[in-house]
Amino acid sequence: MHQDIQTYRRQGFGQSLGVPDAPALVIVDFMNGFSDPAFAGGGNINEAITQTVPVLAEARRMGWPIAHVRTVYAEDGSDGNVFTTKVPTLLQLTENSALSAFVPVLQPRAGEVVIRKTYPSALHETPLQSWLTRRRVDGLVVAGCTTSGCIRASVLDAMHAGFRPYVIRECVGDRSLAAHEANLFDMDQKCADVVAFDEFLRRFQEASRG
Amino acid sequence: MHQDIQTYRRQGFGQSLGVPDAPALVIVDFMNGFSDPAFAGGGNINEAITQTVPVLAEARRMGWPIAHVRTVYAEDGSDGNVFTTKVPTLLQLTENSALSAFVPVLQPRAGEVVIRKTYPSALHETPLQSWLTRRRVDGLVVAGCTTSGCIRASVLDAMHAGFRPYVIRECVGDRSLAAHEANLFDMDQKCADVVAFDEFLRRFQEASRG
Amino acid sequence: MHQDIQTYRRQGFGQSLGVPDAPALVIVDFMNGFSDPAFAGGGNINEAITQTVPVLAEARRMGWPIAHVRTVYAEDGSDGNVFTTKVPTLLQLTENSALSAFVPVLQPRAGEVVIRKTYPSALHETPLQSWLTRRRVDGLVVAGCTTSGCIRASVLDAMHAGFRPYVIRECVGDRSLAAHEANLFDMDQKCADVVAFDEFLRRFQEASRG
Amino acid sequence: MHQDIQTYRRQGFGQSLGVPDAPALVIVDFMNGFSDPAFAGGGNINEAITQTVPVLAEARRMGWPIAHVRTVYAEDGSDGNVFTTKVPTLLQLTENSALSAFVPVLQPRAGEVVIRKTYPSALHETPLQSWLTRRRVDGLVVAGCTTSGCIRASVLDAMHAGFRPYVIRECVGDRSLAAHEANLFDMDQKCADVVAFDEFLRRFQEASRG
Repeated sequence: MHQDIQTYRRQGFGQSLGVPDAPALVIVDFMNGFSDPAFAGGGNINEAITQTVPVLAEARRMGWPIAHVRTVYAEDGSDGNVFTTKVPTLLQLTENSALSAFVPVLQPRAGEVVIRKTYPSALHETPLQSWLTRRRVDGLVVAGCTTSGCIRASVLDAMHAGFRPYVIRECVGDRSLAAHEANLFDMDQKCADVVAFDEFLRRFQEASRG
Repeated sequence: MHQDIQTYRRQGFGQSLGVPDAPALVIVDFMNGFSDPAFAGGGNINEAITQTVPVLAEARRMGWPIAHVRTVYAEDGSDGNVFTTKVPTLLQLTENSALSAFVPVLQPRAGEVVIRKTYPSALHETPLQSWLTRRRVDGLVVAGCTTSGCIRASVLDAMHAGFRPYVIRECVGDRSLAAHEANLFDMDQKCADVVAFDEFLRRFQEASRG
Repeated sequence: MHQDIQTYRRQGFGQSLGVPDAPALVIVDFMNGFSDPAFAGGGNINEAITQTVPVLAEARRMGWPIAHVRTVYAEDGSDGNVFTTKVPTLLQLTENSALSAFVPVLQPRAGEVVIRKTYPSALHETPLQSWLTRRRVDGLVVAGCTTSGCIRASVLDAMHAGFRPYVIRECVGDRSLAAHEANLFDMDQKCADVVAFDEFLRRFQEASRG
Repeated sequence: MHQDIQTYRRQGFGQSLGVPDAPALVIVDFMNGFSDPAFAGGGNINEAITQTVPVLAEARRMGWPIAHVRTVYAEDGSDGNVFTTKVPTLLQLTENSALSAFVPVLQPRAGEVVIRKTYPSALHETPLQSWLTRRRVDGLVVAGCTTSGCIRASVLDAMHAGFRPYVIRECVGDRSLAAHEANLFDMDQKCADVVAFDEFLRRFQEASRG
């Protein structure tokens, strides 16, 4: 992508979103099925899961609102949609399937909201947008998978909704490293800041002290 | 991306959406400003504009609903948003600026709807979704720019809304050919059929005769 | 309300929506808790439940898409919202509570979609809109309760989404008969046709034969 | 409605929303056409306009975000919808018609956002929701008309979106006083606090001093 970065700079893309006043942590689709290369996993997804563990701990320590997002379909397939026409495998993610359970190292606690979705975006046809608005959140710290699928869609919808999205580089993963990099580039130019968590936290704490 | 295509196939991605019963044509952001490499254009956008001219003619001949979508901001900047924080250049696209006018070869006719948007997606916070639903549309034939920006966002939202999206390969363009190809790949795997217009039309007419 | 009907007529309100090509049946909140005057029921709700039984049977005979909508909150209260701030009682409607179960005479069958919601509207932050769009529905036949709450909100959102709403007069109920009548009047003037099911069916069948 | 208030109280309806941290003022449809009983006005709408003048002045003094909302349709009727099928008169509200201009005493200033809508709700298919979210607003102070139409719809959508709505009793009006009162009752029980502006301001200032 480096070949075109001068065009993006010259046309004014990729400016910084600054530091949010009130961030929330949103973790998307870190379910067993996406941890397993035999189902929908692969690439760097398992590293991203491991690297999200300390981020979740820090978010809890900071008292940020926390949302855990799963993809879940009805047992009888009645809520299949255009997304599952493209990717029918996903219809196996039913409520009680082990595939749709959150990975053991990232389990929700009471008071953290669990969001069920049937599309890539964590904010589409789910209660997440109003839940965040009710809490006066203005920035979404985003972890999860896949970078080119549900992360891209959730980040886009977060921007659409008026939140500033911060994609934590080491906490998002994809079965394809090429798709991962291409989507980080697109998001950083047009709809999010792509940043390491340490760097995000350092800036947030500096601004809070400010 | 070829390096990972076996993974996508094995996991069941990229199935066909079939043929719609009632398509509409949606043309996104073919405005003067995106035709001009000195503003926000470049790459293969101008070829895509030229190749959309016969598609618009055919859609009119077929009597499909047609939507022309522009990005437009208020003169006083009062409706700037997270998108324009990332790309402040876009705030120049005001109602009466030449930059925000449709390119001369793709002018709307009476009865074709003109949609104004302030975000990448043609369907986000605009009347397009209900306009299409009112007409019982089930497939969106999509042309416009950029593939990695407003097309990706509009196609994603079209799928989210329950429409089947068909991205016309030769009628979408991007300032970066690398971003163009990467986004066509992602869309074809997960949210749309990427297809030449001749091929789309041939299948549609066969199914209609069926 | 009769006192003002001449004003509405003179200003052009209350025109007919005509006959839909492809109706769906949507049944909202006919749950045990709304059948029970000690919880959230009362008024004419139980009559409306009884009168919906033959409507559901006919919709199945006609092969219409059918959606059953419930209000459900998380056990830990984590998804409470502005609606439950106004009406905290509703937080008792948890997944496995008898209060949130559909009434025995209106149980869903396989292939009929079950929608969970946390707000009055059946279409707000739920997958119902895209589910209907995917099926090319253009008219919603609406039954449920309460007329002044979840029916009014669902009918309004149905119109917003581009569907033509038909409120079946004898199949909607409210704990307050005054609120019931006032809301039927508002809906009939501005966002829906309020009609008896026999009359709706007669017109639909005439148009289909046409 | 008094006849049923005991039922609402016993079932737990009508609790207070408390005091917002960050209110915005939203003025809906105070256009010439709704000030004119010969077009779509009547009842107490003109009193409500007059009583909104000092509220707008105070909101400016307090530095709250301010949104002015108009209903506007395309000259060629191409964006007519289910709402205009029920009320075809409204299609006369085109961009340059005197009917769709804001009343002279409530003109927007630079930096206050102007929202164009084609449905009753100020938040449906318009950029208002994201504009408010970007400003971390958590309460909407609502003025405008009509109480039973665009106010009811906007207040419902505001609650759906996660904002706490405050309907200023003397600043909303309707062509029908019966519909006005019935809708104030419904909103106060289920989705908003209905309150005089002086009372709202007194509580807000007490909480700010808190």
